[in-house]
Amino acid sequence: MANKSRALAQRMLLICRQETRAYSLWRRTTIPIAHLIKPSIMHFKFSLNVNKHSTCTTGSSSLSFRSHTCGELRPADVGEEVTLCGWVQYLRQDLFVIMRDFSGLAQILIPQDEDKMNLKTALCDLPPESVIRVKGTVRLRPDGQENKEMPTGEIEVLAESVEILNVCRKLPFEIKDFVKKSESLRMQYRYLDLRSSQMQYNLRLRSQLVMKMREYLCNVHGFVDVETPTLFKRTPGGAKEFVVPSREPGRFYSLPQSPQQFKQLLMVAGIDRYFQLARCYRDEGSKPDRQPEFTQVDIEMSFVDQAGIRGLIEGLVQYSWPVEKDPVSTPFPCITYEKAMKDYGVDKPDTRFAMKLMDISKTFHNTEIEFLKDALNQPGGCIQAICIPDGADICVQYFTPETFEGQRSRIPEANCQDPVRPVSVVLVKADGALKSPLNRLMPASAKQQLLQMAQARPGDLLLISAGTQECVRPLLGKLRLQCAELLEGSGVAVRDPSAFHFLWVVDFPLFLPKEEDPDQLESAHHPFTAPLPEDAHLLYSLPHKVRGQHYDLVLNGCEIGGGSIRIHKASDQQHVLETILKEDPSLLSHLLEALDSGAPPHGGIALGLDRFLSIIVGAPSIRDVIAFPKSFRGHDLMSRAPDFVSEDELKSYHIAVNWPAGDEGNQEK
Amino acid sequence: MANKSRALAQRMLLICRQETRAYSLWRRTTIPIAHLIKPSIMHFKFSLNVNKHSTCTTGSSSLSFRSHTCGELRPADVGEEVTLCGWVQYLRQDLFVIMRDFSGLAQILIPQDEDKMNLKTALCDLPPESVIRVKGTVRLRPDGQENKEMPTGEIEVLAESVEILNVCRKLPFEIKDFVKKSESLRMQYRYLDLRSSQMQYNLRLRSQLVMKMREYLCNVHGFVDVETPTLFKRTPGGAKEFVVPSREPGRFYSLPQSPQQFKQLLMVAGIDRYFQLARCYRDEGSKPDRQPEFTQVDIEMSFVDQAGIRGLIEGLVQYSWPVEKDPVSTPFPCITYEKAMKDYGVDKPDTRFAMKLMDISKTFHNTEIEFLKDALNQPGGCIQAICIPDGADICVQYFTPETFEGQRSRIPEANCQDPVRPVSVVLVKADGALKSPLNRLMPASAKQQLLQMAQARPGDLLLISAGTQECVRPLLGKLRLQCAELLEGSGVAVRDPSAFHFLWVVDFPLFLPKEEDPDQLESAHHPFTAPLPEDAHLLYSLPHKVRGQHYDLVLNGCEIGGGSIRIHKASDQQHVLETILKEDPSLLSHLLEALDSGAPPHGGIALGLDRFLSIIVGAPSIRDVIAFPKSFRGHDLMSRAPDFVSEDELKSYHIAVNWPAGDEGNQEK
Repeated sequence: MANKSRALAQRMLLICRQETRAYSLWRRTTIPIAHLIKPSIMHFKFSLNVNKHSTCTTGSSSLSFRSHTCGELRPADVGEEVTLCGWVQYLRQDLFVIMRDFSGLAQILIPQDEDKMNLKTALCDLPPESVIRVKGTVRLRPDGQENKEMPTGEIEVLAESVEILNVCRKLPFEIKDFVKKSESLRMQYRYLDLRSSQMQYNLRLRSQLVMKMREYLCNVHGFVDVETPTLFKRTPGGAKEFVVPSREPGRFYSLPQSPQQFKQLLMVAGIDRYFQLARCYRDEGSKPDRQPEFTQVDIEMSFVDQAGIRGLIEGLVQYSWPVEKDPVSTPFPCITYEKAMKDYGVDKPDTRFAMKLMDISKTFHNTEIEFLKDALNQPGGCIQAICIPDGADICVQYFTPETFEGQRSRIPEANCQDPVRPVSVVLVKADGALKSPLNRLMPASAKQQLLQMAQARPGDLLLISAGTQECVRPLLGKLRLQCAELLEGSGVAVRDPSAFHFLWVVDFPLFLPKEEDPDQLESAHHPFTAPLPEDAHLLYSLPHKVRGQHYDLVLNGCEIGGGSIRIHKASDQQHVLETILKEDPSLLSHLLEALDSGAPPHGGIALGLDRFLSIIVGAPSIRDVIAFPKSFRGHDLMSRAPDFVSEDELKSYHIAVNWPAGDEGNQEK
Repeated sequence: MANKSRALAQRMLLICRQETRAYSLWRRTTIPIAHLIKPSIMHFKFSLNVNKHSTCTTGSSSLSFRSHTCGELRPADVGEEVTLCGWVQYLRQDLFVIMRDFSGLAQILIPQDEDKMNLKTALCDLPPESVIRVKGTVRLRPDGQENKEMPTGEIEVLAESVEILNVCRKLPFEIKDFVKKSESLRMQYRYLDLRSSQMQYNLRLRSQLVMKMREYLCNVHGFVDVETPTLFKRTPGGAKEFVVPSREPGRFYSLPQSPQQFKQLLMVAGIDRYFQLARCYRDEGSKPDRQPEFTQVDIEMSFVDQAGIRGLIEGLVQYSWPVEKDPVSTPFPCITYEKAMKDYGVDKPDTRFAMKLMDISKTFHNTEIEFLKDALNQPGGCIQAICIPDGADICVQYFTPETFEGQRSRIPEANCQDPVRPVSVVLVKADGALKSPLNRLMPASAKQQLLQMAQARPGDLLLISAGTQECVRPLLGKLRLQCAELLEGSGVAVRDPSAFHFLWVVDFPLFLPKEEDPDQLESAHHPFTAPLPEDAHLLYSLPHKVRGQHYDLVLNGCEIGGGSIRIHKASDQQHVLETILKEDPSLLSHLLEALDSGAPPHGGIALGLDRFLSIIVGAPSIRDVIAFPKSFRGHDLMSRAPDFVSEDELKSYHIAVNWPAGDEGNQEK
């Protein structure tokens, strides 16, 4: 009895300290605080985590040692004898064990009776993250002691027996300088990092989304899930393809960047509707937020047009969209490449905010300002502007001439051959007057016209750029995005973080001038894209004018997918490869032969699953939606891949390492 | 009108010739005859090929140029205006086009009216396998002209318009010596081979089976589909792992043989239930019917025991089993490794037939026959037999001493150190007398006892082998299978070709003596398998006596899956690696650390999807259930992979080819 009243007193005390303690515990163990205070995430729906009174032939506790998951217990379960398995989140003064599994937390009450002292002893000093099995009875927490923050906060489990299944001996996250080392530590101890509720949510959402996509494609639209090889032949010019040596001297497989050829061959094969969650490979060295292997939702259909594929994908997104998010409405808006470049200066516009590009050439058509006059006089010259609402204070300070230089230099040279021109900054003062180096050079009427065209109000910032369209648009397009970030960084709401803006971009040019030789053409996307029917005749006369049946799917300013209707006639494909692109068609002879063997009209699309998911969950990096990603240098920090392989092991592949001079001594074999 | 009566006359004539013509056409085009005469295969069910009167927002014709698939039209569709897209299977005397898509065949009637002559002209001389779109009206075939062999045989489509979407210019299968070259031709023109109804069936069944498996795992049992990397670190001794050079000199990724480490790490990460249709890689050179990349259904669960995993898999097979096959009953029978070896001489017994091994040692315990006496006198010596019902006539002629030598030599040397002993052949004559070299050496009582033990009847064949158990069992086990094949080859029914016998084999030894050094132990399966609880104490005293918690799933004598409950304590794992297997535990330090960081008890299994499917569809090779398989030498005969890569392209990977002497000149760069 003494024990019981002591327990009660302790309980009263502890309840008040719970949040504080939870937080301090998180700091020590680095289990993300979301576990402790974000029940909304902990408690997302599982498709068939059905019946908590199940006989356990289905659901998350079927075939298991446990009868229930930690997170599913509710007042309706009171009186039930349950068995839980999970991790010790923390212990509270020998009275409670907070126990965790993927579904959430449960409070276990350790009996204080003399005859259960062994149970108490067993749990005492048990390190956090140890694994236990608890058998006990569900009961309501005493009045006033419920925890409304916790989905299971109305109940607790009075333990009858506890089994320690494994003791956690190492918690490598107890490293002092945690914040600074987080990314590499997270990667090195990924199996601990994945215990966080955010990563559990991300991976489970990924699984559910992919399942829904499969149901939609297979069960609703009759698609066939076909696996295609990843040990393939190197594609012409495939500089980004990993090679895989075979046991035949000098012969290599290649890990393909996408199943493009196979999906088209499957259409020739009469598979009719193909999809695959395809592992793809791209060796890009150390690009930020790229992975050497990634996953795409790969789709191809026969007897379909652009509208058909777009409709399919809109349905796919809608069908698989997480239930906890606002529903997606369809059809998605669709704009042409030309319109995207004109309004946003980029082919993947972020349409969550305006700040569109404006052509203000006519305001200056009689100008005496030298550099503007020069700009307008050159072929394709123009003057354009963007207006940044409330940007005068926040943004102007960042725009030194150097900033513009930096922006300017990122525009590919091929598209931008006019001399560098700075962006002119115009502030709209509180009284509507302009503050700018241009100010005294502009007649009043021009100023008036400018303000009117830009619909600028006091406090706004105007950024003006002059030059060829090919230069001005991408420059202002980048500044538009940068200003949005600057404003948001200062607390101005520009984009709704919960908004998802899907957008189709269509009517891309089929060919572009080659960067290294602008007289030559290269494919804007790939050589298998069919021309728009109305431009098809130009393929043989003015190929640079041909628009392709390509479509990009853009979400919040990121390209998350792209595809096209393909060329299905061998003669057209041969013409594109040989005459327009000057490539050796013999390298694709199997595809050309296939097109001549009864190829149906067909088209498809590929969605970047990792990127799509990272936007949905709001993750800063695709690494947060991949179970075991590589570091930005392509390393697996947990297993230390890639690693050295002995000369002997390489012999059967008939290869040897070319050690750079002076490096050979350093190899750890 | 003249046209019409001519048409009718033609029709009468043609109907009789239909089957003959179809066959001769098949010979010309090599479209498998199954297309023309096997409606049962053509007409298997699609999960949601739902509503043939659909508005086409779902089902196989959604979002498509077509309104219906060729194979779905029935008398209920009469009067309907339909659009079909597909391939010209064949033309019949300018009157009919037989049109094909994945779903089957439809007969198109070409109107013979003067004003539709252009339509007739367009179709005339159109090569088979050209792609067309036909718009027309469904009507009943005239009385008596139905084709009962064809699912759409009661109707035809009267064409109103026809569009030729692509002309088939090449039919590489018109090669004279077709039968002989078939396999490599099939591979080279795989996109044509896949048009056969059998390959369409195989790939579509694969897709459906996999979809069902996913539904079962995800939706019924709360599994999480997690993708694991394929660019990984080389595992110690992973001689069969392909290497992938990275851009860092001397460092290589490795393509893993299975996600074993990752699946265990996911359990440590609290994912609780993981599955993946995992692409796996194994570089085995030119083994028959192996593929360098293959797919396994990879599963891992926390808080589960053997019975849980076995129950899960039984449910999985039952749930995903093709509806057109007889249902599978569960639970599957389960026998120990010891029992499998004792009764069948093999650890993956084909239980579709008996002919079990019998120990007949006691019949000969007083024998004077020298080699039998010697056999019994050695440690572990025994005399065993199998009885082949009705084998006297068919099998005996094949069993020359050389045959037995051949069998004998396949038994690994480590297990079989006694001198070679031939198998003794005993025929049971019609009068019940024995015919055998042993006959005159055996007393009548022994003969009687032998016949009784073997339950041998007149016409049976007894095969007797003497030696150590380790030799005799595998030898008789192989002869058992060979006799079954011999009997079946002569038309004797031994195994029901439509029967599917699933079997669990359990209680394998955890360790086996190393082949190259029998004093050392190696893992029977892999070093992560946990011991049977009742044998766990032997791990530290008599490891060679320990049985593991491993289970194999056998179907019709093929191992289609295997798994185990894993070691989840770091100390046990360390002991197994370091003390028992004498391996360097630092190579698996990340796994050992993970086990020390709160690893739950866990176990799993992997099923070989390709093999499983090939047994279900009765295919002779796993190549028949893979869309684009490699040849037995590991080549893609269509694209000619693996291929040569220029020295220059290899430079960024810091590798160079070691050309074998005299070979360098031959390289085609």
